[in-house]
Amino acid sequence: MTVKVGIINVTGYAGMELARILRHHLDAQLVAVTGRSMAGKRLDSVFPHLVKMGLPIIEKDELEGVDVAFSALPHKASAEACIQSLEKGAKVVDISADFRLKDVHEYESWYKVTHPGPQYLEEAVYGLTELHRREIASARLVANPGCYPTGALLGLAPLVKERLIGPDVIIDAKSGVSGAGRTLSLNVHFSEADENVSAYGLEGHRHLPEITQELRQMDTSQPWQVTFVPHLIPMTRGILSTIYVKPADSRLPISAQGQKRLTDLFRDYYKNEPFLDVTQEPPQTKQTWGSNMTQVYPVMDLRTGRIMVITTLDNLVKGAAGQAIQNMNLMFGLPETEGLDTLAFYP
Amino acid sequence: MTVKVGIINVTGYAGMELARILRHHLDAQLVAVTGRSMAGKRLDSVFPHLVKMGLPIIEKDELEGVDVAFSALPHKASAEACIQSLEKGAKVVDISADFRLKDVHEYESWYKVTHPGPQYLEEAVYGLTELHRREIASARLVANPGCYPTGALLGLAPLVKERLIGPDVIIDAKSGVSGAGRTLSLNVHFSEADENVSAYGLEGHRHLPEITQELRQMDTSQPWQVTFVPHLIPMTRGILSTIYVKPADSRLPISAQGQKRLTDLFRDYYKNEPFLDVTQEPPQTKQTWGSNMTQVYPVMDLRTGRIMVITTLDNLVKGAAGQAIQNMNLMFGLPETEGLDTLAFYP
Amino acid sequence: MTVKVGIINVTGYAGMELARILRHHLDAQLVAVTGRSMAGKRLDSVFPHLVKMGLPIIEKDELEGVDVAFSALPHKASAEACIQSLEKGAKVVDISADFRLKDVHEYESWYKVTHPGPQYLEEAVYGLTELHRREIASARLVANPGCYPTGALLGLAPLVKERLIGPDVIIDAKSGVSGAGRTLSLNVHFSEADENVSAYGLEGHRHLPEITQELRQMDTSQPWQVTFVPHLIPMTRGILSTIYVKPADSRLPISAQGQKRLTDLFRDYYKNEPFLDVTQEPPQTKQTWGSNMTQVYPVMDLRTGRIMVITTLDNLVKGAAGQAIQNMNLMFGLPETEGLDTLAFYP
Amino acid sequence: MTVKVGIINVTGYAGMELARILRHHLDAQLVAVTGRSMAGKRLDSVFPHLVKMGLPIIEKDELEGVDVAFSALPHKASAEACIQSLEKGAKVVDISADFRLKDVHEYESWYKVTHPGPQYLEEAVYGLTELHRREIASARLVANPGCYPTGALLGLAPLVKERLIGPDVIIDAKSGVSGAGRTLSLNVHFSEADENVSAYGLEGHRHLPEITQELRQMDTSQPWQVTFVPHLIPMTRGILSTIYVKPADSRLPISAQGQKRLTDLFRDYYKNEPFLDVTQEPPQTKQTWGSNMTQVYPVMDLRTGRIMVITTLDNLVKGAAGQAIQNMNLMFGLPETEGLDTLAFYP
Repeated sequence: MTVKVGIINVTGYAGMELARILRHHLDAQLVAVTGRSMAGKRLDSVFPHLVKMGLPIIEKDELEGVDVAFSALPHKASAEACIQSLEKGAKVVDISADFRLKDVHEYESWYKVTHPGPQYLEEAVYGLTELHRREIASARLVANPGCYPTGALLGLAPLVKERLIGPDVIIDAKSGVSGAGRTLSLNVHFSEADENVSAYGLEGHRHLPEITQELRQMDTSQPWQVTFVPHLIPMTRGILSTIYVKPADSRLPISAQGQKRLTDLFRDYYKNEPFLDVTQEPPQTKQTWGSNMTQVYPVMDLRTGRIMVITTLDNLVKGAAGQAIQNMNLMFGLPETEGLDTLAFYP
Repeated sequence: MTVKVGIINVTGYAGMELARILRHHLDAQLVAVTGRSMAGKRLDSVFPHLVKMGLPIIEKDELEGVDVAFSALPHKASAEACIQSLEKGAKVVDISADFRLKDVHEYESWYKVTHPGPQYLEEAVYGLTELHRREIASARLVANPGCYPTGALLGLAPLVKERLIGPDVIIDAKSGVSGAGRTLSLNVHFSEADENVSAYGLEGHRHLPEITQELRQMDTSQPWQVTFVPHLIPMTRGILSTIYVKPADSRLPISAQGQKRLTDLFRDYYKNEPFLDVTQEPPQTKQTWGSNMTQVYPVMDLRTGRIMVITTLDNLVKGAAGQAIQNMNLMFGLPETEGLDTLAFYP
Repeated sequence: MTVKVGIINVTGYAGMELARILRHHLDAQLVAVTGRSMAGKRLDSVFPHLVKMGLPIIEKDELEGVDVAFSALPHKASAEACIQSLEKGAKVVDISADFRLKDVHEYESWYKVTHPGPQYLEEAVYGLTELHRREIASARLVANPGCYPTGALLGLAPLVKERLIGPDVIIDAKSGVSGAGRTLSLNVHFSEADENVSAYGLEGHRHLPEITQELRQMDTSQPWQVTFVPHLIPMTRGILSTIYVKPADSRLPISAQGQKRLTDLFRDYYKNEPFLDVTQEPPQTKQTWGSNMTQVYPVMDLRTGRIMVITTLDNLVKGAAGQAIQNMNLMFGLPETEGLDTLAFYP
Repeated sequence: MTVKVGIINVTGYAGMELARILRHHLDAQLVAVTGRSMAGKRLDSVFPHLVKMGLPIIEKDELEGVDVAFSALPHKASAEACIQSLEKGAKVVDISADFRLKDVHEYESWYKVTHPGPQYLEEAVYGLTELHRREIASARLVANPGCYPTGALLGLAPLVKERLIGPDVIIDAKSGVSGAGRTLSLNVHFSEADENVSAYGLEGHRHLPEITQELRQMDTSQPWQVTFVPHLIPMTRGILSTIYVKPADSRLPISAQGQKRLTDLFRDYYKNEPFLDVTQEPPQTKQTWGSNMTQVYPVMDLRTGRIMVITTLDNLVKGAAGQAIQNMNLMFGLPETEGLDTLAFYP
């Protein structure tokens, strides 16, 4: 069986990256792509790197005859298109934020729009594959996580699930510019972003409630206090998250022995994960460039008793299109790594 | 049949990139890697992006039990290792410059060393696949071309073979920094190379004689006068070559019609090539990032009667490791594109 | 005496850079700045790096009470504003292209607009300081050159004025992205321009006629055939131009002696120039970063008989705002280097 | 009076930057520079951007006839050279770490060498100008701070001096590559550092004890628990520090009013500082590029009750050479801003 795939809004970076990955997928075939601004053109004339992918880009957001639709539309528009696809019988992976938050009020307060389909929120599965593999496999609608939450939650999950840390969590993230998408704005103008670093979203970034929601689900006992500060750095792809927490108690003693226990915990927790690499050295985003891998490095600060976890990933692959394909594979009973076994490009 | 492959000096960028590509190759298996400075370590501990490639790095340059050896040693040392491998019955693809120049005197005057095996020069085939496909297929020893000559010659070949241009050729090339390899030097120090561009090799770059040798072979009638000026620009991968020539005569009239004839010539010449893309717009190196493609864009300057040909490629793939695998595929009767069908990573 | 200065359209990179340089000028005072999109704000709130420059940005393009107006408006609008300032008695330095071309038909064919004041074209002086110092000193209206022509013409002038070269000129220029200004477009989006190089303007860049006009003026005997190909490279500031010409005759023999004669020619020609540096090594744009210097490096290709001249400059300083201030200094009888003696920032 | 200045080890980035700044200083004259590897050459031939600075580089580390010596040698060698200069009657500003830590045991445990002159530690003044202005003015030996401590301490000082925060301090710093100096190593190789971000020094960075020492001096009552994690990001100059603390008590309530109080505190504290800018928006390193300014932005996370302070500076100017000149100005009774009033270069 070949899964017939459609991409709604192929002209942004996430949509484009989905097309690239699907080109190498043995069990899926891209059969339709949409994109208003480039409607009527061939995919490979808009994106010359997609050599010989000659699909015409269609204008309307609706897809016919696909088994699965990926939506890479902006929020709200995405929910509308996803619902249409669901109603036509397709499965859906939504790259936008529309189905990530379970609480419609929280969604509406963060995104300042009315949710077009709150009745789907309960059914939707948060698509952080390593945390919700089983539910994803049987899902009809997957809400693909944000790039920042993916890096943050994969660094926190082993500690949170084992209830090893206290409620104070600081996530200091450094992202390449492609995370901001392909839309023009002054802060992503080359001359402004080059040779520059800045923090943003200090009043509250929209990826914060996703992180908190998942932490609460993993450990309901903690009154999580999450500070999340993203930074824009002068590179195209990659996110490095530096996470600061404190042990909840003496199960993780601040000592060489505690450090070993910490490393073993992560190794054990992720030992069967195809896309998780618990590293021996501090990881670099370049080691995940173009791949679906997340690198995780837990380390103790023996002086202060803090635990730091550093994670890296490619925001367009594991942080968006790659994880979406990983979820599709599960939803259709395909091998989870199909189409995704590309090693990183280094240097 | 699975081809057993060895890489001599895996620790530079070309060697490392060979390992990465071979990981995805269905008909070849990497069985041995050498590298003096990292001897004894596992490949994936030296290069964490080569996830789960646990081959031990061996110290000596000799390989046993391989069907083909790739050598990524510096010149002279490379020839010595290649000859050893040939004598043990392996086929050889040499990434170094040692077997590229047919004239041993020219080699010795450019490289300032005595050639360790001039008797192999006649047998060696210059591995620019698109120009020497047939000879490569039956070769025992292939001299993989330099990254600059690959971009220059693929831009010139259709014009030269058809004897359409005069002898004056200017090649102004812009290269990413990885072309200079992994060896430390001040000019590739980040703080020096970042936000900077400079020309180098103005007294004569070692890739020049390769270019001239191949032009002479394609059109023996012209007294080729090639000026080649490489420039270092602040990016990691990619070469863009801007080539300036003049038509030999009125077969390529300077007119809109001539422009069409020029484009058609290139399209026709490269129509069956899996890794050549004659583009409709000026190409960008980013559109070949990580892929084995060469983009070629021929264009007339109607004001002055010049022809410009712009080519782009990834210096580590088509400019080194990718073309080496392409040649290996031919040498072993495998599909030419095996292991090399990766689309470029954009953005 | 303090010169009272106004900047029309301070919100682009050239206007902003004028403000920065004027802040350090001992004999000039910035008294008014305009900028439609930011009207009403203080200069230092729009550009925090202009610390304590609290001038309010005014909306209309007209300036009152200034001795000199710099216009950094887009073409056509700039001419209109310049004429208004002239009519109010101010001197004018126009950063736009409106008064650079002497032939109004040529202007209108390249810029596709009707010129608002062709009667001023004869009076306007082309402000490449080193070529027209005397006329600039007595000018009322100076047309500040384009960034590319500045680099190209300073590399060619000694050869052209001495009639030492033939008519075939190739200028292969590599520019940082700030040359494209602050206006948003996809080709200057960080994720598109980063790790990328491309040629543009292949059908004819608007800076070409400026270059040809000046060459014709320096040597009327040659039928100049200029090919100019600009490239966008991933850095913010700087232009490196690689110029390819051939000697007209045996006065510049192709030999070590000829090379010496060539270097001496440039040294002698520029020996009293405060902002010209004839270098002993191939120059790097980084060595002019933030300064008003142009580096020039003439070199022979002994194999082919070509002469290459490589020049570097900061496109926002010598290529725009710096040269404009240099011209202002001359127009008001101030020391030419006043406000401009900043060394480059390296690394 | 003109201060006669010498630079010991001018060939690194800090030494070179001192020379650049001194070139524009009205009351100081650079009279001698040393540098072993380039001994005998002229300063402007080694660094072409230092146009017409023809001082010969001398080999030995000793300077004669200077009023003040700046040492930019590596640690230990620097102390030795500084002591020699002191003994000859010069004042000294040491860019190295040798006289920063008051406790010789702490120095020796972090730097793994024997201190060559522990008897000078008491006399030495820690040269963070804004914290120790008075002592610096009368000092004979100033220990110029590290680049990271400068950014961290200027962000913390108002809060610490007023005893407004608790003992838990996290400093997540992002630095350009020039902070690592001009010495070659793989982590600063362009192809490795470009398009990459990584944390380092996780086992304890040498700038940590400086930070702790100064915090203890400002507020002796707190058991400071400082976690400091530096990151290398792909740009040449600039450090952005994101500092996370918690209020000590209700004097800084977590509310809009508290936010105002926080901003006012910083404004008031730094109101007479020429090189401190308390910004209204999150600062960007680019806004301090090439200048001696530090930008400081304090902000509350109303959700979690944390305070973040973000600071930016140019690591080679305020983080090294600029602050050293600022200290020299104080030591010789010159205007503190002399030679240092350059605005930042943006973009």
